[in-house]
Amino acid sequence: MNEEIIGCRFSLAVMNDDYANMILKALKNLNTDKIWVKSDKLSTTYRGKLIHVTDALKACFININDGKTHITMEATFSKGCPNYTSLDSFIAKDNILLNPTTKSFEVLAKIAFYPLGTIDYMKHIEFAIDLARKHGVFKEISHYATELLGDINKLFYYFNDLLLYAEEIKHFALQVTLSVNSPTKF
Amino acid sequence: MNEEIIGCRFSLAVMNDDYANMILKALKNLNTDKIWVKSDKLSTTYRGKLIHVTDALKACFININDGKTHITMEATFSKGCPNYTSLDSFIAKDNILLNPTTKSFEVLAKIAFYPLGTIDYMKHIEFAIDLARKHGVFKEISHYATELLGDINKLFYYFNDLLLYAEEIKHFALQVTLSVNSPTKF
Repeated sequence: MNEEIIGCRFSLAVMNDDYANMILKALKNLNTDKIWVKSDKLSTTYRGKLIHVTDALKACFININDGKTHITMEATFSKGCPNYTSLDSFIAKDNILLNPTTKSFEVLAKIAFYPLGTIDYMKHIEFAIDLARKHGVFKEISHYATELLGDINKLFYYFNDLLLYAEEIKHFALQVTLSVNSPTKF
Repeated sequence: MNEEIIGCRFSLAVMNDDYANMILKALKNLNTDKIWVKSDKLSTTYRGKLIHVTDALKACFININDGKTHITMEATFSKGCPNYTSLDSFIAKDNILLNPTTKSFEVLAKIAFYPLGTIDYMKHIEFAIDLARKHGVFKEISHYATELLGDINKLFYYFNDLLLYAEEIKHFALQVTLSVNSPTKF
């Protein structure tokens, strides 16, 4: 298995009548030349080098946020599954990002981090929570998740940092939910 | 910690303009007397005895499916977190279900099972996949998930069986996605 490959399976949910069109447009309007992409009936999967996977995922969420529609993204980053092949992937040699952005907006998020095959998993989970505090995106410990709040760029900077740390874990999954424009007041 | 308590944090996504009304109605029109319930800006959490948690969750998804709108449910079942308290919960003494149903419809689903704090985690993941085959709901192994297809009642029968098996694992999370009425053809 190629140690450099990380995967991300994600699903966008758009709460309006125009959802299909908005999702297809958001997926199309970015440069995915440096990653492997596959869509199925439930999600889209990106595979490749970490910075290119997070770059594309962030661009996709920035694309879809129209500033008014309630939209969520469910994403699972994962690496190290022993049954996995490196066939479905693409590793770009360089670190030059293809989807730079200057857009900025606040996102409510939650994460659940699952380090697998290790007795010491709580140590890694606690690291993930501490790192969110250091990045200034920690909101609160919630039921079965840690809630985050912050600018889209700050959040992805945190995810990237946490996933870099996670390289030392043999196999892990990081479940992320992003939410914008929710009408819920509390 | 009360060994009998399982938790489920879930989010409904309704792809139409009337989503807020549909979600609130679906959450209201069921009997949750035997479980502990809390909604926040991202999700609703049910906690209690396994059969009452799955009973309420199934009722909620049956409530919201109007047979035409594309709707998804993201649910994370979890048990055994060492940092968890048993305060926010409610354990009914009996096993009498409060939300019996005769409705039936096909659901496309995916699961990812994360047994934590054990070296032997792949053994449990393989058990989960085999159990899906035995229940007749296995569709295919996909990227970072196992896809399932089946009647809503058969799927929940499978989730319940898998979660009963999971009682032997110290700490686990089971991530489930349900999807109905997707316009995607493939």
